Amino acid sequence: MLAEAGIVLTPAEQDEIEVADFGLGDLERYGLEVVVYVNTERVCAKELVLFPGQTCPEHRHPPVDGEPGKEETFRVRRGVVHLHLVDEEIVLRPGEQHTIPPDTLHWFQAGDEGAIVSEFSTRSRDETDVFTDPRVVR
Amino acid sequence: MLAEAGIVLTPAEQDEIEVADFGLGDLERYGLEVVVYVNTERVCAKELVLFPGQTCPEHRHPPVDGEPGKEETFRVRRGVVHLHLVDEEIVLRPGEQHTIPPDTLHWFQAGDEGAIVSEFSTRSRDETDVFTDPRVVR
Repeated sequence: MLAEAGIVLTPAEQDEIEVADFGLGDLERYGLEVVVYVNTERVCAKELVLFPGQTCPEHRHPPVDGEPGKEETFRVRRGVVHLHLVDEEIVLRPGEQHTIPPDTLHWFQAGDEGAIVSEFSTRSRDETDVFTDPRVVR
Repeated sequence: MLAEAGIVLTPAEQDEIEVADFGLGDLERYGLEVVVYVNTERVCAKELVLFPGQTCPEHRHPPVDGEPGKEETFRVRRGVVHLHLVDEEIVLRPGEQHTIPPDTLHWFQAGDEGAIVSEFSTRSRDETDVFTDPRVVR
């Protein structure tokens, strides 16, 4: 999907694509495929791939070590993404984006053709994410 | 160039592409074309386009208001970029990237086919950039 979208990865990056099933064992429905471009103390950028209909389960990024939680902007590159906040569903098409403030519950699902999403954020510490479904293991 | 690379912009973004000639009046040689996707207090992401051989003049991002200067990662999407640091030239091809620490002098030039570069950084405050050439006006 990345190659079809013209997104070039180095061979090392191709070998390191993270396939996250969130411990739910149902990757086709619940999961994310992730390329981490950079993740420093201050800035993180990732490319997210979602299969058709694949969902990233509801979670939030709480404050850690006295710093505000992760702030993320999702920019859709291909496909359609349904971004669900507590009181709102936002439909994002290619070229459209939305910024999610720290510590804000959200989940998102790709449309029927799957999706590619660029994520621009502060430092990523996935192990501190808080998921609503207690079965999730990140 | 962005469309050819499959990078989708909204109509509003297309209308707001920044064409920066750095006050040097020689855009073909010295300049940048910039799409700012997001620029919050904490995170910035831009797409940079350089014409064939176009150069962004040497500059650094100093500390501002007690915060460290801007940290930027340049990820090349198309073309070749020659990134010049004080003691080093780094050649970046598609899929390759380099992170520039705060307050570090750098300049960069596109190869013969021009280039597209994704920039992932902390907050961008272009007006505080310090250029080596005193003629530059940002």
